[in-house]
Amino acid sequence: MAKINENYLKLQAGYLFPEIGRRVNDYMASHPGKKVIKMGIGDVTRPLVPSVIQAFHEGVDEMAQANTFRGYGPEQGYGFLREAIAKNDYLSKSIDISAADIFISDGSKCDTGNIQEIFGHNNKIAICDPVYPVYADTTVMAGKTGNYNSGYYEGIIYMPCTRKNGFIPDLPAETPDLIFLCYPNNPTGTVATKEELKKWVDYARKNKSIILYDAAYEAFITEEGIPHSIYEIEGAKEVAIEFRSFSKTAGFTGTRCAFTIIPEELKAYDSTGKAHSVKSLWNRRHSTKFNGVSYPVQKAAAAIYTEQGKKEVAEVITYYLENARIMKESLSAAGYEVFGGMNAPYIWVKTKNDMPSWDFFDILLHEINVVGTPGSGFGPAGEGYFRFSAFADRNSTIEAMSRIKNHRLS
Amino acid sequence: MAKINENYLKLQAGYLFPEIGRRVNDYMASHPGKKVIKMGIGDVTRPLVPSVIQAFHEGVDEMAQANTFRGYGPEQGYGFLREAIAKNDYLSKSIDISAADIFISDGSKCDTGNIQEIFGHNNKIAICDPVYPVYADTTVMAGKTGNYNSGYYEGIIYMPCTRKNGFIPDLPAETPDLIFLCYPNNPTGTVATKEELKKWVDYARKNKSIILYDAAYEAFITEEGIPHSIYEIEGAKEVAIEFRSFSKTAGFTGTRCAFTIIPEELKAYDSTGKAHSVKSLWNRRHSTKFNGVSYPVQKAAAAIYTEQGKKEVAEVITYYLENARIMKESLSAAGYEVFGGMNAPYIWVKTKNDMPSWDFFDILLHEINVVGTPGSGFGPAGEGYFRFSAFADRNSTIEAMSRIKNHRLS
Repeated sequence: MAKINENYLKLQAGYLFPEIGRRVNDYMASHPGKKVIKMGIGDVTRPLVPSVIQAFHEGVDEMAQANTFRGYGPEQGYGFLREAIAKNDYLSKSIDISAADIFISDGSKCDTGNIQEIFGHNNKIAICDPVYPVYADTTVMAGKTGNYNSGYYEGIIYMPCTRKNGFIPDLPAETPDLIFLCYPNNPTGTVATKEELKKWVDYARKNKSIILYDAAYEAFITEEGIPHSIYEIEGAKEVAIEFRSFSKTAGFTGTRCAFTIIPEELKAYDSTGKAHSVKSLWNRRHSTKFNGVSYPVQKAAAAIYTEQGKKEVAEVITYYLENARIMKESLSAAGYEVFGGMNAPYIWVKTKNDMPSWDFFDILLHEINVVGTPGSGFGPAGEGYFRFSAFADRNSTIEAMSRIKNHRLS
Repeated sequence: MAKINENYLKLQAGYLFPEIGRRVNDYMASHPGKKVIKMGIGDVTRPLVPSVIQAFHEGVDEMAQANTFRGYGPEQGYGFLREAIAKNDYLSKSIDISAADIFISDGSKCDTGNIQEIFGHNNKIAICDPVYPVYADTTVMAGKTGNYNSGYYEGIIYMPCTRKNGFIPDLPAETPDLIFLCYPNNPTGTVATKEELKKWVDYARKNKSIILYDAAYEAFITEEGIPHSIYEIEGAKEVAIEFRSFSKTAGFTGTRCAFTIIPEELKAYDSTGKAHSVKSLWNRRHSTKFNGVSYPVQKAAAAIYTEQGKKEVAEVITYYLENARIMKESLSAAGYEVFGGMNAPYIWVKTKNDMPSWDFFDILLHEINVVGTPGSGFGPAGEGYFRFSAFADRNSTIEAMSRIKNHRLS
């Protein structure tokens, strides 16, 4: 008799974003003609830049001729892309990362979820609260938790990120083995300084823990001195995996390409205490359960690193950051307490009078046709907060802010 | 302290195809100028067909304009592709499969590996011997086996496929919960008749087992009456998942697109004996750990189902099958016992005098610069066999056969 993985039964309701999609679709189906402005799911709206489009077409054309056709590529990604990443994202910024430590994938969501597989069930996981839901859900699926109880899964170490600690977690009372951190942060839009990250790297080195560092939004950092990579911190290569994505950096949410860095130095341990290379384990997983990213997509991604590509991509980032600035200003003017939006495409808003997040979601959707993300969807400490993304087009952004300003929302 | 998934320590050496790649690269590096003909890894060589290229370009162009740009798509795949598959691969052949039961993915290797995650550790897995190595390796990674011992992982039910049973396994003595079957078969190139598949479907229904049916090579079936889908067998929707891919059907090995069918009717059980929808479990996994296939790739894949696309793709299949015919004939003429190659792109050859598979591999590589796949790499019952793929170009195929014929191989 085929038996299910019963860990799945512990999972709560639907995954957050499909649930938002369902409510929005239901509303739109029963209210045709309404112009709903979507600032919920963190999805980009600007087209791929010309350099990327040109390289994408060239990649497709190569697939049309026998002498340039590409079949299976290296599971880890093509050398030309891994080298462009190492050179432009790391070496040119004095961060010593080798192309050989870079794994190209079809998305950071996949990688942050799949990475769980190479670690045993007996690891204690720490995650921030609130946080991107994939970390907790995949921890549950992998059998590293107990049941769900009052908003939390037993066995996960939750680290509250609140106004009080500036949305940077304190070191937890119980020592975790794997620690998910995400800066610039989703959902709060806040960043961590070098000092704050150093605290975590030192803590992980002391405890032989591993930091799973999600840097999907690093391209949005505008302030000098804020670290773009955890490897800017001394010793981080011994204790950290870094996840990056072209999704938000270059509008690849529908094109699919990301990468993960696992330095040669990084070790994890077996039950006898023997150290093993984490990179080797991931390489085995990646080459057994994955077959590489589409060649034209990798070719398109590499174009981001040309001089022209860099310029074009930077313009798109600036466009979204200007949206964020407008939103931050408008929401503050409308009397909301607002966080983030300076070095990140997310605005984290305190609801008025502690209105529950989903109530605020439904009011915004039904009364002014604006979609955001309920803070409580990211964890109990997100209750009473709301996330807006800066990825809408300029006119929609201005229109949504105007609707919020002009409507009497409780 | 971060602890590894110790199941990975049970895995043997490298995954087969990277190991072949390593030996070939070593040889080529030390023998520059040698023309090595590759018939090892089952990778295609013909370019993408014109209809696919055109649609691929159109998809890229849509990504270049804000009003046609696509961000995150449905994790399950776009409706236009799922509906084209349901209509052309199933409904038009009187097989009742709904678009809602189809999950688009970036590869069957990913799906056949990842599917393990939704089933508990306490399932007994049956696989054929010899077989595509991913089934066993991902079973090990998922913690469903004991240690490796004399060519086999403890806990897996191996089903020998030999000349004696015509490479169709007998029902095993011990009852499995999950059964991997692959027809047309990789590596033996053999097919299963309706009667043979019915035996398995009936067996699975009786035992509430699930058949994981890999039909990646169905497009190569030329004989009338051989089933293209397991769902041609009555009752199969209650007990089978079917994996299909565009990799070999339409040359997508480097473009990446595949799909998996999980019928609504399919159930698996929890420890209390309660039935659960396998499709719901997979949908949760797919939407939490995957973010959909690149939009231009899905658009390109859908072009396979246009009238012109079907014609073009059929011509490529015919090309490879003609290679297979030439190989079958040449190898037989050279005194080898040959199987497969009629309804599949693989030729399964008995080595002469029971020469071990890897010895034959090294002789072919070093003496006549032809690369195949050692049968023992697919399992102990493959020892003394060798797989050639029919995916090389015509001239290389003829050249390789001529080298084999003219060289005195032991």
